[in-house]
Amino acid sequence: MPLKTGDEYVASIEALDLEANVLGEPSRGLAGHALVRPSLRAVAVTYDCAHDNEVGALFRVHSPLTGEQVNRFTHLHQSAADLVDKVLMQRHCGNRTGCCFQRCVGLDAANAVYSVTYECDRALGTGYHRRFRDYWAWVQREDLVVAGAMTDPKGDRGRRPSEQADPDLYLRVVDRQPDGVVVRGAKFHQTGMLNSHEIIVMPTLALRPGEEDWAVCFALPVDAPGVHYVLGRQASDTRKLEGDPVDVGNPTFGGQEVLTVFDDVFVPAERVFLDGEVDWSGPLVERFAAYHRQSYGGCKVGVGDVLIGATALIAEMNGVARASHVRDKLVEMIHLNETLFACGVACSARGLPTAAGNYLVDLLLANVCKLNVTRFPYEMARLATDVAGGLLGTLPAARELDDPEVGPYVRKYLAAAGGWDPLQRMKVLRLIENLVAGAGAVAYLIESMHGAGSPMAQRIMIGRQGDVAAKVELARKLLGIPPNNHS
Amino acid sequence: MPLKTGDEYVASIEALDLEANVLGEPSRGLAGHALVRPSLRAVAVTYDCAHDNEVGALFRVHSPLTGEQVNRFTHLHQSAADLVDKVLMQRHCGNRTGCCFQRCVGLDAANAVYSVTYECDRALGTGYHRRFRDYWAWVQREDLVVAGAMTDPKGDRGRRPSEQADPDLYLRVVDRQPDGVVVRGAKFHQTGMLNSHEIIVMPTLALRPGEEDWAVCFALPVDAPGVHYVLGRQASDTRKLEGDPVDVGNPTFGGQEVLTVFDDVFVPAERVFLDGEVDWSGPLVERFAAYHRQSYGGCKVGVGDVLIGATALIAEMNGVARASHVRDKLVEMIHLNETLFACGVACSARGLPTAAGNYLVDLLLANVCKLNVTRFPYEMARLATDVAGGLLGTLPAARELDDPEVGPYVRKYLAAAGGWDPLQRMKVLRLIENLVAGAGAVAYLIESMHGAGSPMAQRIMIGRQGDVAAKVELARKLLGIPPNNHS
Amino acid sequence: MPLKTGDEYVASIEALDLEANVLGEPSRGLAGHALVRPSLRAVAVTYDCAHDNEVGALFRVHSPLTGEQVNRFTHLHQSAADLVDKVLMQRHCGNRTGCCFQRCVGLDAANAVYSVTYECDRALGTGYHRRFRDYWAWVQREDLVVAGAMTDPKGDRGRRPSEQADPDLYLRVVDRQPDGVVVRGAKFHQTGMLNSHEIIVMPTLALRPGEEDWAVCFALPVDAPGVHYVLGRQASDTRKLEGDPVDVGNPTFGGQEVLTVFDDVFVPAERVFLDGEVDWSGPLVERFAAYHRQSYGGCKVGVGDVLIGATALIAEMNGVARASHVRDKLVEMIHLNETLFACGVACSARGLPTAAGNYLVDLLLANVCKLNVTRFPYEMARLATDVAGGLLGTLPAARELDDPEVGPYVRKYLAAAGGWDPLQRMKVLRLIENLVAGAGAVAYLIESMHGAGSPMAQRIMIGRQGDVAAKVELARKLLGIPPNNHS
Amino acid sequence: MPLKTGDEYVASIEALDLEANVLGEPSRGLAGHALVRPSLRAVAVTYDCAHDNEVGALFRVHSPLTGEQVNRFTHLHQSAADLVDKVLMQRHCGNRTGCCFQRCVGLDAANAVYSVTYECDRALGTGYHRRFRDYWAWVQREDLVVAGAMTDPKGDRGRRPSEQADPDLYLRVVDRQPDGVVVRGAKFHQTGMLNSHEIIVMPTLALRPGEEDWAVCFALPVDAPGVHYVLGRQASDTRKLEGDPVDVGNPTFGGQEVLTVFDDVFVPAERVFLDGEVDWSGPLVERFAAYHRQSYGGCKVGVGDVLIGATALIAEMNGVARASHVRDKLVEMIHLNETLFACGVACSARGLPTAAGNYLVDLLLANVCKLNVTRFPYEMARLATDVAGGLLGTLPAARELDDPEVGPYVRKYLAAAGGWDPLQRMKVLRLIENLVAGAGAVAYLIESMHGAGSPMAQRIMIGRQGDVAAKVELARKLLGIPPNNHS
Repeated sequence: MPLKTGDEYVASIEALDLEANVLGEPSRGLAGHALVRPSLRAVAVTYDCAHDNEVGALFRVHSPLTGEQVNRFTHLHQSAADLVDKVLMQRHCGNRTGCCFQRCVGLDAANAVYSVTYECDRALGTGYHRRFRDYWAWVQREDLVVAGAMTDPKGDRGRRPSEQADPDLYLRVVDRQPDGVVVRGAKFHQTGMLNSHEIIVMPTLALRPGEEDWAVCFALPVDAPGVHYVLGRQASDTRKLEGDPVDVGNPTFGGQEVLTVFDDVFVPAERVFLDGEVDWSGPLVERFAAYHRQSYGGCKVGVGDVLIGATALIAEMNGVARASHVRDKLVEMIHLNETLFACGVACSARGLPTAAGNYLVDLLLANVCKLNVTRFPYEMARLATDVAGGLLGTLPAARELDDPEVGPYVRKYLAAAGGWDPLQRMKVLRLIENLVAGAGAVAYLIESMHGAGSPMAQRIMIGRQGDVAAKVELARKLLGIPPNNHS
Repeated sequence: MPLKTGDEYVASIEALDLEANVLGEPSRGLAGHALVRPSLRAVAVTYDCAHDNEVGALFRVHSPLTGEQVNRFTHLHQSAADLVDKVLMQRHCGNRTGCCFQRCVGLDAANAVYSVTYECDRALGTGYHRRFRDYWAWVQREDLVVAGAMTDPKGDRGRRPSEQADPDLYLRVVDRQPDGVVVRGAKFHQTGMLNSHEIIVMPTLALRPGEEDWAVCFALPVDAPGVHYVLGRQASDTRKLEGDPVDVGNPTFGGQEVLTVFDDVFVPAERVFLDGEVDWSGPLVERFAAYHRQSYGGCKVGVGDVLIGATALIAEMNGVARASHVRDKLVEMIHLNETLFACGVACSARGLPTAAGNYLVDLLLANVCKLNVTRFPYEMARLATDVAGGLLGTLPAARELDDPEVGPYVRKYLAAAGGWDPLQRMKVLRLIENLVAGAGAVAYLIESMHGAGSPMAQRIMIGRQGDVAAKVELARKLLGIPPNNHS
Repeated sequence: MPLKTGDEYVASIEALDLEANVLGEPSRGLAGHALVRPSLRAVAVTYDCAHDNEVGALFRVHSPLTGEQVNRFTHLHQSAADLVDKVLMQRHCGNRTGCCFQRCVGLDAANAVYSVTYECDRALGTGYHRRFRDYWAWVQREDLVVAGAMTDPKGDRGRRPSEQADPDLYLRVVDRQPDGVVVRGAKFHQTGMLNSHEIIVMPTLALRPGEEDWAVCFALPVDAPGVHYVLGRQASDTRKLEGDPVDVGNPTFGGQEVLTVFDDVFVPAERVFLDGEVDWSGPLVERFAAYHRQSYGGCKVGVGDVLIGATALIAEMNGVARASHVRDKLVEMIHLNETLFACGVACSARGLPTAAGNYLVDLLLANVCKLNVTRFPYEMARLATDVAGGLLGTLPAARELDDPEVGPYVRKYLAAAGGWDPLQRMKVLRLIENLVAGAGAVAYLIESMHGAGSPMAQRIMIGRQGDVAAKVELARKLLGIPPNNHS
Repeated sequence: MPLKTGDEYVASIEALDLEANVLGEPSRGLAGHALVRPSLRAVAVTYDCAHDNEVGALFRVHSPLTGEQVNRFTHLHQSAADLVDKVLMQRHCGNRTGCCFQRCVGLDAANAVYSVTYECDRALGTGYHRRFRDYWAWVQREDLVVAGAMTDPKGDRGRRPSEQADPDLYLRVVDRQPDGVVVRGAKFHQTGMLNSHEIIVMPTLALRPGEEDWAVCFALPVDAPGVHYVLGRQASDTRKLEGDPVDVGNPTFGGQEVLTVFDDVFVPAERVFLDGEVDWSGPLVERFAAYHRQSYGGCKVGVGDVLIGATALIAEMNGVARASHVRDKLVEMIHLNETLFACGVACSARGLPTAAGNYLVDLLLANVCKLNVTRFPYEMARLATDVAGGLLGTLPAARELDDPEVGPYVRKYLAAAGGWDPLQRMKVLRLIENLVAGAGAVAYLIESMHGAGSPMAQRIMIGRQGDVAAKVELARKLLGIPPNNHS
């Protein structure tokens, strides 16, 4: 039965017992580590929802690959409706966790690799697609979490991989053996690596002839020999170590970002999905990015809903819920959030089948979606900060409430409108702080900027997909201007 | 055969020979009047497209009402896909005309009246829905243009209809007779009235008990006795009278806005679709507005495409097409335009069937769509102005080119990059001027602000549809905060 | 006595009896031409204010050049306080005229030429500064209007002057004679040329060795032989010919933009202020631009005040003056307008003396000022459009009020709140239309974008003046990072 | 000699040995506490600068109160130039510290109290002004840091002080004795309290008759009996306790926000500057706010310079410094920052003398300044995040560099362009993180929103000071519309 529960998932990760460096220390038992545990809880929600009475139907879907019901987080989209459902599912997970739930990257990678390997095989006679189908059918049956790894360190960004002082600054094949390849390099910004079972590694840019060693795509178990992890720091991360969930802001869930190093790691041939076919690196990057840019039209919207809710709640606690400017700011937040959602839905509803049969989002609209995500959450955070008030930056620690001397003062002077308890007010303020200037801001603001590619990457795609020439044609026709033969 | 050609349509309007006041003069022969003719040509495009090899399939659709193919501009939407197709059709018409093509209001009115009369009948036992079906089947079979009339003059907007100094400031029933009603009042901002066959009149706001006389919905032929028309002025309107299409900007197509007065007009009972049922005025306004707010996610996007194309073309003529800041501005324009399109698509794709069977857009997303339309075309116009250069505001008349003395100077100094002819450069500049500060700006900017309701109307709907309470619930659950019994 | 009255000024222009092409016709008697007269009236305000009891002191200033009181519009700034007073004077003129009053360009040109000729002479031993002092002392004594001409046609903007298909696309010296030079070329966008006495011509960009022929600066009377004028069209310009001031919007005042052609015009040596000194073309352009970018922090703010006032008045007439969202939009308009004013004041208050003794604005802040002017008036126009309502785009002609049949209808249905007369309401709507989509928008929007240089010109200057290196130093010091020897 | 050095200042604070609750613990030795020490270092800069060869002259100023040179941070402004110099001084301190340097509040309070007590005395015959002069002369002579305390807890913000469930939610006089008053209440958001010598307490809003007990203004030493302090938490605050300055971001300086409780504290009569004169509470709040809103046009600009520098530096390290979009983003950051500075300068340059003789900023422009501060730093933080890249949210701890196993990996893969050391790259990333989502964001973002009043407070003042009526008058005059007698 391919639909694990959240508990089963957590147990499966605990069993892996990965090692990683955390705050300068080699650490084990990560699944229970206060800095990592919240990220497992967030992923567990994606499992539990498939068993949920209310929303389960959205999370369960028939897989033509296995002939069984699978979790939609492992699904190869079979229709535009599937693409829309993906966005709805992501919004729901954002609603439940208030953070990045870290299971989309693998889903987006799989859908990209699926169609690109098909087309590569058709063009070049390679055999990657069958390999990938087999691999992914196993992932679906086991209901695994697959992290996706794309971003290379890049060193001097003004130079191609081979021009870098160190060629490893882009991950590459350093040895080709009969039964597999050996790779070296690193991937930055791995969201949710330490709570995954598998990794899919993809190139980070469109490669050119002569850059074959960097044109490699493959999968590995997270505990493959030679793979090393270093946990990234987040703002206010160590509040999770202090033992008081109130000051953490999001008391249960959280994200996780990891630097992953591949130090001459062997990848068996059956897990290699591209090796040297430089022409297919571009489409792979482009499609993965498009799927992932669509994702943000769901997940960030889901977190945005939580931020709107928290803002409305603090307005009530502050006694300003009925002020016209406060209502107007909430309307603006909803408007911005729903615009993002509209973009997520639209690029999905306009999706089309690939040659391989799974569905791809509309590339132009998916990039438009993400470019808006690099803007609107920032304005929403600004509006939330406005409504929440200065306590966002000056609130004492929750444990002051227990201090025999100052506790009564803090309680007395944090008195809220409507009889709300000061502790509840603290909780709401800390949740908003978490999202606008704390650990949650890593996913809600910084990742909204750079995840799935920085804004300039979207602008380049929009320029390419926007078909300016056709628009010039419209103007020319309307004006009766013949094409210019001279230009 | 219900699919007229553009020429047949034009002939049918010519045959009506309406009278209207134009620039202070009672005028006839309007179909050939230089200020009105462009608006007939724009509507004719909606007919010709149904016969077009390339796009005809999008414009023709099977009507369950008549059992025949009808023009989609008269269609009652049978699915979410129909709603999306409406948006695509509108974008195409915008692409072809570069202006408002004035046939959407009736379409949007019909879909709103269709479902609201059904529900009113079901609730109150009235017989409006059958009447409206009969009426609309006739419209479909005759392939008519139906103007929609909603906006009352309103007088002092701080007061209800009955509180106005003059009760006629909201259109109302002044007499009820056995075979019909007599109405008095006026409607502002009637887009494309003088090129229509019929008018549907609707109330402008949600009425309350005691305001029954204002709760009236009906249809009339445009030449009904007692109906009077006064043409609105547009920026640079009289350039159309000068005889030189270059200075007009859009040489072929244009819009038209009319003040319509109903001076004790008799409406036969068979054309009355609401009379005193105040509770159904709100839903009627809300649904019409939602459909029409969706429309803007198509038509304004289509005009936006033309503006982008003209901007790219003038950049080429100015020799700056390759400057990074110019390309960036074009990308921004595309991004904004596609965000509007995404909203149009999304509110359609998320559409749902009404009780009557036709499909209604997602109300929240349709309002989000329109609220963006009150913003982004302004920024697009600003960016187009930036790229086009100062000649937008200082270009001499095209006929200076023919002046024996200064003509050669004008030609010499308007020399463009890439060998483009100065006349062509003039045409492109005039088209952009038309859209950012001329007659086209009435539809592209002013109507984008106020058409289908001013921004505050959308904000109110977004506040209502955004379900803040559910979002507060999400935050509360995440934080383990019980509901506040005191508030 | 160097302080003319407005009437004296008008008479002096009438006496010149210039010829220009207007709407395709060679025309004389321009001072009385309906398309030109409003621009004389606007300039006349700058004269009358010097005799005004209330504000005269601001307009009159002691000139060290002549030892007499002169109109500040001809003043060489002697202090930072003088620079601030210039901005205050400009705001006042905008308040009085509601349009561009067209007398700043010459003032800004004079202050730039004054200091640049001084430095050029000092460096190269030329004798331009004395010539210019003599010239300008005469201008001050005669209280003349001097148009400034900078923008060349430029042809293909990707190419230098000498690389153009036609070298005349940048104005140049075509012959050097013992007693003067002969110039050929044209200048675009000449604001207020037909109401001026003199022209100062300057190069349009920083020239390089080899481009000496284009490095020319000089003055001429407007009626010099070989100078030709072609009036530019403005949106809705011909409403001024219709005879009804209401539909014009701004009933009294207006602007004027001219294409000026120099067809082998002789300039006597005494009026040549630069001829071939390429190194001084850059500073001349830069300083003129800076003064003129400062100007916009006064004049556009003055027009903005009128737009805000008109918006508040129409809100009152519409009965919505007390709605919180309307008040909020007015506050936003004031905020944006005052931000522009703050920039105008700040670049003045931070002004410093040049080597020649007159004061120059802070270059960085003046560019910041203008870059904001390319943005905020657009948002203000959008907000005014929002508050004013759809009638902005659909209002019938004012003369409909006099029509025996429809006049009573128009009057009845344009009834306003608070008992305002429909005609007054029309006037206010037409003034707002004038500024957001009519003849006034040429100055308020298009000129705000491109006058004194397009936004990219300001961005380049801000990048240059912003001293990023010093800011990097601040960050390095704070972090204890030594400079990087490798980079 | 009234000009202490930074060291002397630090010693004087150490000598006070205050007690405060920090992270739930009563703590002493705060001057050396890792969470407080950086805030002393920041204030020490304001002292050291007065002895600095380069900038000392800006920080030293002659006081007419004492007849001696004093630190400008204690100065009563004697001219508009003094007001401008204040802004320059603040920008410089922001440049040196990269954070809030916490000494402005007392300066702004003093200038407000000085003029308000003068006017109160004049109107009511009270004797507050002399008291305050004596007090402030002592502050100048001793070169003290005076914290300003304005923001009351407010409880239910929809209610007046006397309507609150607990009247202490606004600080009030609970007892009046022959030689002084006893006060009870609390003040939120006290910036830099634990590094101050004195506190000035002011009311938080304009009080009305019947609210005399809340209309109280006074000064106290920070160690007065009955005063209690609770330190507020900042994002990532505990990184300062970890011992590694790199991860802190700003390695030396920082801010501090405190909740201050007054539990029946006795204030001697000589330190009471208002007691029951409700009419003077409004002007006091308004003037203090205006001065403090001006301050943000200096201090936040100074921090903005550091952020721009850090952004340019990371661009260089990332190898993208020459990309046109990166340069454009830096230009935009400079533009926004200089717009804030222009507002700070303008409200100062337009300052006017009060009746008491010291200078007050232009109230309208000061509010405009602050309203921009609630927006632009957010956009600057967004742009910095864009340029800096995803490492902002995923960078490992600096101490990973020392780990024997992963250290070499981290070093290898963080390799930067131009040969910059990975550790230096980390430092720059951490400084940017500090300002956009860390402890520095409390001052740079949250305080920019709420410090000196939330945006709505500025909007109300702009609405009041903007003189809409005079602007309506301008429009009326231009249109020849008489005033409306009916409205």
